[in-house]
Amino acid sequence: MKRVCVYSVIIILFSFFFLSFRIANENEEDNFDFPISSETEDCLMCHSTINPGIVESWKNSLHSKITVSEANKKLDLEKRISSIPSENNLTSVVVGCYECHSLNTDKHADSFDHNGYMINVIVSPDDCSVCHQEEREQYKKNIMAHAYANLMDNDVYKSLKSTITGEITFEEGNFHFNDNNKLTDADACLHCHGTKLEVKGKKIVETDFGEFEVPVIEGWPNQGVGRINPDGSKGSCTSCHPRHDFSIETARKPYTCSQCHKGPDVPAYKVYTASKHGNIFSSKEKEYNFSNVPWVIGQDFDAPTCATCHASLLTDPEGNVVVERTHQFNDRLSYRLFGVPYAHPHPISPETSKIKNSSGLQLASDLDGTPASEYLIDEQEQLKRENSMKQVCNKCHSVSWTNNHFVRLENVIKTTNSLTQTSTEIMLEIWEQHYADNANLFDEYIERQWTDVWLFHANSTRLSAAMSGGGDYGVFDNGRYQLTNKLFLLKEWLEGKRNTKNKKKKP
Amino acid sequence: MKRVCVYSVIIILFSFFFLSFRIANENEEDNFDFPISSETEDCLMCHSTINPGIVESWKNSLHSKITVSEANKKLDLEKRISSIPSENNLTSVVVGCYECHSLNTDKHADSFDHNGYMINVIVSPDDCSVCHQEEREQYKKNIMAHAYANLMDNDVYKSLKSTITGEITFEEGNFHFNDNNKLTDADACLHCHGTKLEVKGKKIVETDFGEFEVPVIEGWPNQGVGRINPDGSKGSCTSCHPRHDFSIETARKPYTCSQCHKGPDVPAYKVYTASKHGNIFSSKEKEYNFSNVPWVIGQDFDAPTCATCHASLLTDPEGNVVVERTHQFNDRLSYRLFGVPYAHPHPISPETSKIKNSSGLQLASDLDGTPASEYLIDEQEQLKRENSMKQVCNKCHSVSWTNNHFVRLENVIKTTNSLTQTSTEIMLEIWEQHYADNANLFDEYIERQWTDVWLFHANSTRLSAAMSGGGDYGVFDNGRYQLTNKLFLLKEWLEGKRNTKNKKKKP
Amino acid sequence: MKRVCVYSVIIILFSFFFLSFRIANENEEDNFDFPISSETEDCLMCHSTINPGIVESWKNSLHSKITVSEANKKLDLEKRISSIPSENNLTSVVVGCYECHSLNTDKHADSFDHNGYMINVIVSPDDCSVCHQEEREQYKKNIMAHAYANLMDNDVYKSLKSTITGEITFEEGNFHFNDNNKLTDADACLHCHGTKLEVKGKKIVETDFGEFEVPVIEGWPNQGVGRINPDGSKGSCTSCHPRHDFSIETARKPYTCSQCHKGPDVPAYKVYTASKHGNIFSSKEKEYNFSNVPWVIGQDFDAPTCATCHASLLTDPEGNVVVERTHQFNDRLSYRLFGVPYAHPHPISPETSKIKNSSGLQLASDLDGTPASEYLIDEQEQLKRENSMKQVCNKCHSVSWTNNHFVRLENVIKTTNSLTQTSTEIMLEIWEQHYADNANLFDEYIERQWTDVWLFHANSTRLSAAMSGGGDYGVFDNGRYQLTNKLFLLKEWLEGKRNTKNKKKKP
Repeated sequence: MKRVCVYSVIIILFSFFFLSFRIANENEEDNFDFPISSETEDCLMCHSTINPGIVESWKNSLHSKITVSEANKKLDLEKRISSIPSENNLTSVVVGCYECHSLNTDKHADSFDHNGYMINVIVSPDDCSVCHQEEREQYKKNIMAHAYANLMDNDVYKSLKSTITGEITFEEGNFHFNDNNKLTDADACLHCHGTKLEVKGKKIVETDFGEFEVPVIEGWPNQGVGRINPDGSKGSCTSCHPRHDFSIETARKPYTCSQCHKGPDVPAYKVYTASKHGNIFSSKEKEYNFSNVPWVIGQDFDAPTCATCHASLLTDPEGNVVVERTHQFNDRLSYRLFGVPYAHPHPISPETSKIKNSSGLQLASDLDGTPASEYLIDEQEQLKRENSMKQVCNKCHSVSWTNNHFVRLENVIKTTNSLTQTSTEIMLEIWEQHYADNANLFDEYIERQWTDVWLFHANSTRLSAAMSGGGDYGVFDNGRYQLTNKLFLLKEWLEGKRNTKNKKKKP
Repeated sequence: MKRVCVYSVIIILFSFFFLSFRIANENEEDNFDFPISSETEDCLMCHSTINPGIVESWKNSLHSKITVSEANKKLDLEKRISSIPSENNLTSVVVGCYECHSLNTDKHADSFDHNGYMINVIVSPDDCSVCHQEEREQYKKNIMAHAYANLMDNDVYKSLKSTITGEITFEEGNFHFNDNNKLTDADACLHCHGTKLEVKGKKIVETDFGEFEVPVIEGWPNQGVGRINPDGSKGSCTSCHPRHDFSIETARKPYTCSQCHKGPDVPAYKVYTASKHGNIFSSKEKEYNFSNVPWVIGQDFDAPTCATCHASLLTDPEGNVVVERTHQFNDRLSYRLFGVPYAHPHPISPETSKIKNSSGLQLASDLDGTPASEYLIDEQEQLKRENSMKQVCNKCHSVSWTNNHFVRLENVIKTTNSLTQTSTEIMLEIWEQHYADNANLFDEYIERQWTDVWLFHANSTRLSAAMSGGGDYGVFDNGRYQLTNKLFLLKEWLEGKRNTKNKKKKP
Repeated sequence: MKRVCVYSVIIILFSFFFLSFRIANENEEDNFDFPISSETEDCLMCHSTINPGIVESWKNSLHSKITVSEANKKLDLEKRISSIPSENNLTSVVVGCYECHSLNTDKHADSFDHNGYMINVIVSPDDCSVCHQEEREQYKKNIMAHAYANLMDNDVYKSLKSTITGEITFEEGNFHFNDNNKLTDADACLHCHGTKLEVKGKKIVETDFGEFEVPVIEGWPNQGVGRINPDGSKGSCTSCHPRHDFSIETARKPYTCSQCHKGPDVPAYKVYTASKHGNIFSSKEKEYNFSNVPWVIGQDFDAPTCATCHASLLTDPEGNVVVERTHQFNDRLSYRLFGVPYAHPHPISPETSKIKNSSGLQLASDLDGTPASEYLIDEQEQLKRENSMKQVCNKCHSVSWTNNHFVRLENVIKTTNSLTQTSTEIMLEIWEQHYADNANLFDEYIERQWTDVWLFHANSTRLSAAMSGGGDYGVFDNGRYQLTNKLFLLKEWLEGKRNTKNKKKKP
């Protein structure tokens, strides 16, 4: 009996320490219950000292805590992987350095011998697809995966880019543009769109652990959404799932999207923060569960983030699927709202540089707003996508509320397109009268005022409506107020030219 | 004795599980200790499946956890209600769906028969006043409650609106404005100001649970601060207390105010985030207690949010009241700083469209800055309000610190009014010389440059000073730098017109 | 035996309550284990009632919890103090009101008799240096400590300021500037740069505890980084360590830097939030440890804040020092990127108003971009600083990644300087032709367009590159797009003047 009491004291103390420990570690799961491959152990031997930041990130990741086999045992809706590696040696260890950086080395121009191991510098979407096949296939259909060519192979956008990122000299009263600086490209447009990673030989770098021969990769570093990788694949999963914890929490938070969707050309994040949804998210973020899979409406969160509406697998508290996970983010979007002169139904193909309008410009609308319909989804597909989005809305809003919201969005698309059209009419007159030169549509003061109308103000106004985002981004904060300012300026500028009869010579 | 030890083991295990449970649930209070009405049970039967988002929000709310009778037993300063429903059946159940959506159906044009219950789509401030009478009465005196008419019944502001939200066509060198699109209004200015909700018959909507007949409500959805409700009342409590947890935490956080107070016309939130107060809030938010009533300075927080200074009941740690709760947010404000050409003492009446200046314009100042004093509070009332605000400041700042702050604010009001006056002098000359047409003050390029001076830059500069908000919103970020840019532009534009002798004809 | 069991029950209950208590208080440390001085007890007697906000802040601070003697016993890397007061009476009590506000009263013009104690209103960096000597010495070399004179003693910047903060009247077609308003200065530029605190006699103030005679301090309140204090010292530790908890957590969070580094002239905070680093910080902030000293890479955080790269003592998880703590924030910066027409190597002396270019202007470059090299650090020092920064980068990034980042930064410096040069060529032509008057470089419309080029757009573009901050702040959000807009405007404006032959007369 004495022993029973002693046991009880031991249990008490155990409980006490266990609980103390549990409180201290309540946000962490146990590490290293599953084996690390010997190759990864080798990596860690040096890199845990050289790069402790990323090694510790990885230690906090699910990748370090579970084998693919175990991950595959989860119930369907709870699964975070969608495929199993064909090679058995990958399934029985946790997903460490070597497991990702050693994949498909034969396809990787950036592969190099590193202490006896063939290692790729870059881990590409094709590499990730070993376990995340479905997500990778969806992402291929995402317009973002093609962001490099959608910009760089589109003559209209390239001509805009050439006036922004080039060297500009002023000689004898004229500007000379020299847009041929890959470092600037990587730092500017391609930061988000993705660079083209090209291996240009090798070089020796000095490190704390001595000299190493490594590939020289032009365009590196970059984590843009449409990056062209050295294995030929497109995209960068780390755009939204930052290295090296690749956490679903981060991808589900709006800060991730804000990396590229914040400026005046696409102020989605700003609109979101000023919306009711954004307010509630900000106010209650710390009470939400951002890691649960599937993501349960009401239980895990009660205001959506970007991912909620555009990407995540959602269920209701009873486990019914509301919408499936998608990495093709326009799956629930009927219109393309930004980055284009006129809003229009979403393109059928994500490769938008292949679109041509009736004048042969690589735009999905004519300059008068007529859509290049053959390249765009039809009404039925639009309806399907809108209905898919409405499934999400309706989990918190009545059917009338949701329907009325989309009626307003249709109205905004129509009215902003109309205002863009008015501004374009004036601009066309300016070009016609040779007050400006349409050889490049973006290299004169007045042309840029016109560009502002659609690239900034009409876009901002539409995004504001699309996300019930508050009046300001649709009115005074780069919205209709600034749009009409520019309209008034265009008119006055044209009048000034007419009055002074001071026409430019045709070039 | 053996049993004693067994008991002790049982107690250990119980403690262990209880504590584990408590840790897991530390942020939640127990639900459903009080009865739910049978009507609300009926609502939940379907809506917990149809709209789990809002049902779960409600479950997390105080409304779901306490009856009015119990809420009324709290000590005075701790009370969150200020009145008791006259109908007994409301006091003995928790405040569920039916308790709010079934109130005053006779006054609600949006009332409809829903599965045998008369239900209002909209819950109005008058409905909330059943339990929150005092707050509702205060809010009636809040300028925000009248935001619809303050815009839509003011000819000056309406003429500005007509140049922003209308359709604009360009015909024979002139713009034609057609400002008659209620969908645009709802999406633009009235998003914050509030729409007029008008019931226009009924219609059938299709839902997952079949077809239902529901009211058609023009202007819906909307949560603007001055919404005109189908029961005739004005305002929307969900502007700041979002559905359906109506949490005081959310209302006390600055994100709520940022929904409407963020753009260049009223960048209060931006100024706040750049202020010392905003920095400390952001840095320490997670350590603060945002739900305590009364809100205890120092104990619950040590940097104020918007609500702290403008709305909340505050006490010191000893329980002494510092300021009373108010839902008339100018109770502690001596001046009106934004949305107006010249800063001036606060209007006496919240219905600002009834103000007329000496020229008959619905503005509280003449164009030269002379205030329409008969409509404005006098110096004594200004002093009273300023002193009320100072009570809050002085809990963390010395009397000299606080006094000097307000001396600076007075100076900024004077200097920004003076700069507005200078810009207006130039503009008046422009109008007088018919270089621009003053039929509408806002529909030409140069008029908008003048508008920017007061609507954006002078306002931003004043808000920056009012909240010790950092140099930038008073200098380089839409502040004095941009203000003077516009001044210089106005002067140059006038000179240009004079030099070209190119007068417009009087229309 | 029975007693053993009873004991076990007692232990259980004790464990239970202890744990409950521990959970409730997990974020707090015990207070008042060390003695409070009798003087501070006297202060608290009134001020805990008068100013509970700051008293409670102080109670949460380390200052209230530990004596200097105890703080000095910490291991070297863990120390938060770098010196010991010479007076013994300061080392054996916690650091309370009196301990700081009574220091060096003989040097303090703001010292006054307060209930029998000589008290300074302002606590200056020299006062803080009693315990934080090393940090204070470093800060003396920080360009920020000299921010007052760097602005107010620089004729170029002062002439800019005079056009921004002055009274402007419009008489007979001309503007008259009157820049002589100290209240405006304090509210505008000097809010961040720091005011000059000058004691102008005494006055009686009324408080809740009666009347008190206190010093009249011109320029007070202010917490600008280069404040001139009444003891002659420069700076304000509360700029970044807000009163009265002076927490290292706050200083380490980017919100603190955002107080002054957010506007278009220096959008560092905005760039950060749009960067990968900022995204990860925002997403994972609540999991990070911001109070640990030293700050351990990977363990305490896995994405850097401003402080990580520019200020903090960092170690790896094994305790190896990565970089030393510095309060001279350019210690790891090779270039000066913002606030100047051309980016250039960092000045040798933090007193930048002493720099003169070849034309005698107080700028570190000629107007054509040639640096005033004698005042600037040489390449070797630049390399040393860059290498110091790279130590931090390399803890999460490969050597190639880091090197390529800095190659891009060099490119951006070159290209933005070149664009500034192009804009300046046009501006010089405008001045030369007397289309504008270069008596003041900043008081005409077209001059401000040129100012925007370098003060906003080139700066923003560089900061975006420096922090891998996303495309937008380098392209569409006050970046290259707006920069080229202004270039196109400058050219068109010049052409307009040439065409109208409408030269201004030389003044």
